[in-house]
Amino acid sequence: MEKKEHEKKEAKNKDEKNLLMENVISLCKRRGFIFQGSEIYGGLAGTWDFGPLGVALKNNIKNLWWKRFVTSRRDMYGFDAAILMNQNVWKASGHVTGFTDPLADGSKFNTMFSTSVGAGREAATSYLRPETAQGMFVNFKNILDSFHPALPFGMAQIGKVFRNEISPRDFLFRSREFEQMEIEYFVDPRDEKKINEVFDTLYTEQMKFLSDIGLEKSKIHKVEVPPAERAHYSKKSVDTEFDFPFGRRELIGLAYRTDFDLKAHTEMSGIDLSYFDEETKQRFIPHCIEPTFGLERLILAALSQAYAEDNLGGEKRIYLKLFPSIAPVKIAVFPLQKNREALVLKAKEIYQTLCKEFGAVEYDDTGSIGKRYRRQDEIGTPFCVTIDFDSIEKDDTVTVRDRDTGKQERVVVKNLASFLSQKLGA
Amino acid sequence: MEKKEHEKKEAKNKDEKNLLMENVISLCKRRGFIFQGSEIYGGLAGTWDFGPLGVALKNNIKNLWWKRFVTSRRDMYGFDAAILMNQNVWKASGHVTGFTDPLADGSKFNTMFSTSVGAGREAATSYLRPETAQGMFVNFKNILDSFHPALPFGMAQIGKVFRNEISPRDFLFRSREFEQMEIEYFVDPRDEKKINEVFDTLYTEQMKFLSDIGLEKSKIHKVEVPPAERAHYSKKSVDTEFDFPFGRRELIGLAYRTDFDLKAHTEMSGIDLSYFDEETKQRFIPHCIEPTFGLERLILAALSQAYAEDNLGGEKRIYLKLFPSIAPVKIAVFPLQKNREALVLKAKEIYQTLCKEFGAVEYDDTGSIGKRYRRQDEIGTPFCVTIDFDSIEKDDTVTVRDRDTGKQERVVVKNLASFLSQKLGA
Repeated sequence: MEKKEHEKKEAKNKDEKNLLMENVISLCKRRGFIFQGSEIYGGLAGTWDFGPLGVALKNNIKNLWWKRFVTSRRDMYGFDAAILMNQNVWKASGHVTGFTDPLADGSKFNTMFSTSVGAGREAATSYLRPETAQGMFVNFKNILDSFHPALPFGMAQIGKVFRNEISPRDFLFRSREFEQMEIEYFVDPRDEKKINEVFDTLYTEQMKFLSDIGLEKSKIHKVEVPPAERAHYSKKSVDTEFDFPFGRRELIGLAYRTDFDLKAHTEMSGIDLSYFDEETKQRFIPHCIEPTFGLERLILAALSQAYAEDNLGGEKRIYLKLFPSIAPVKIAVFPLQKNREALVLKAKEIYQTLCKEFGAVEYDDTGSIGKRYRRQDEIGTPFCVTIDFDSIEKDDTVTVRDRDTGKQERVVVKNLASFLSQKLGA
Repeated sequence: MEKKEHEKKEAKNKDEKNLLMENVISLCKRRGFIFQGSEIYGGLAGTWDFGPLGVALKNNIKNLWWKRFVTSRRDMYGFDAAILMNQNVWKASGHVTGFTDPLADGSKFNTMFSTSVGAGREAATSYLRPETAQGMFVNFKNILDSFHPALPFGMAQIGKVFRNEISPRDFLFRSREFEQMEIEYFVDPRDEKKINEVFDTLYTEQMKFLSDIGLEKSKIHKVEVPPAERAHYSKKSVDTEFDFPFGRRELIGLAYRTDFDLKAHTEMSGIDLSYFDEETKQRFIPHCIEPTFGLERLILAALSQAYAEDNLGGEKRIYLKLFPSIAPVKIAVFPLQKNREALVLKAKEIYQTLCKEFGAVEYDDTGSIGKRYRRQDEIGTPFCVTIDFDSIEKDDTVTVRDRDTGKQERVVVKNLASFLSQKLGA
């Protein structure tokens, strides 16, 4: 009897979680965040197209990441390598022989997409890169020669990668084309204490970034990957998992890759990828610690955490509790009615001012005010500013409505920007 | 005799232009802008890897474009479609049969890269997109359904595209992997006057953008494409050419594509891609005007125009006259000597302040001051700020050195930010 109750409860939980995923996917399509790729042709499994709000959300996350890990640091070198690379890159890295998934019939299947570059006899096999990492390793010497950095230093890249997954699933979680944000951080192999310190610091920086985009601490879990499950080149690995609606799954990773890659490319290419230490006059191949972020997984984590329903004023509503730093629209400005010139003029004036200050501001005068609030709630806009008759006839105040509580307060126009700036944490 | 002189002059001009290209490519590698893709493996022809300064330059151009054409307009919808699409997209668009280059042996060769998606019997042919345009056309209905825009409105996208060029050449000009920045602007087909107006306005906007990134008017040429040379779907087409070192070549394009694409996808997919005009209660397929920008061509135009050599203080120097809006580093800050604590402290304080104001600021205390100026000249940094003994002992001023003239002037520290802000046009 007790077991049955437990099973019932489990089944109910599962249904609720499935429902949450369905609701998120449906909202993403309905409001213009994310669409199935090539949808009008029945789709291409594992590909997703980002609509206007999806691009804005994505760009917000990319820009925050680039700022935190590249432009605000003096030890990091931004990079953008080509997607198509010489096939020897993937021979050296082990991907040509090792990047496989078993098929149902027991044969092995390489999950790199291959293509042919050039025409006729000169055609060469190439692969769509399955990770951005190798584009940085093969350019290690270029960074040394152009910038002469001293260890430790890192290279960082944001870019598309491709994996021919046999069964893409769970919306953005396991797809065939996605973006990685990766860092290869190079350290002196002779100083193990320092290596451990760098590893821990990079982990802390990863956690700070998850907090930057508003992911809840309670949904984030640290998993030390046991030796048997680590990649063959990895000496230490920490995965960060997240409570997705379909279960606890990998969100980002941190791996100590040793000198595996630089050594493999030195051997295969015959080009010396070692580092010369001016102080000790020693030459060696640096070790590498790699923080990896899957951009679409971060987006999925943010969206699934943000999706909420409640009752407001007796009506059911759907809203996205997106953290202000990543919300596609920060503020929406409405005139109460669109056929009253004084209201519209004042609203447009306020809209222009807020645009200059906050960038992502929307003006909307279509349909009823209730419908406009509903749309902004669903796309996760933290604040709506409404210009009503009191604004123009009485006291030069506007109403500011909070997305999460639905509560409105009147704010004097001249204090509006600083009021919103404080609320948005901008 | 006269002919010989002319030929000599032509040959000399050609040598000079080849030399300019070589100099630009060499500087790009030496200073960390752009490297040959997969270089340590002998390269992969037609692919290029962007180093730290190249990424910064690229991001500056992308961000200016996105701001001008997407976020600052209320009639434009940003988009980011997948690179891999259902093969029917390219059947409908005509690329499967028509996107070809003749080989030396007379056979036809399709310049789309093909790959196989999925495993075993379920595997399907797919192509790496040769243009971003189709990703927007196939999502036209999604924009209508999610945002209900009224005509005219546009969709805009920045993204990678791939073309299997038989002979990639001229550095970034003709490569196999590059980024497009494209707009599909939809108009009412019943109003020819309005269509012409929109076409002209988009052309003007294109010119404004070229001016935003500092390209010289005298190097820019408008070419009305004659009917015989236009794509079969195009009713009107204006190319903008630029004086590259290797000749006058296409930089950006503007094409009136009529209803060709939306019609083709409606027919092939069976999904209705028409628009319903609420006012006249009529249903029709909109026409489309397409401004296209090749990101790498803009970068090459900017770099080749900026490359300069002169004599400064009796020494030959190389510098990049990049427009401040796209320069990877806006300001460099130097202490005159690095072993004088007071100089370093003051320099770091000024560096921090300028970072907050201008973002892309560099601090450098390595090597002689002359060597530091030389590096900043070569990477195109508009201004160098040097903190010397007068700064800390006398009058709280610093020297500000202008990249193009090499002239220095002393500026009071408290006026420094506003002085630089004015000079940079920020």
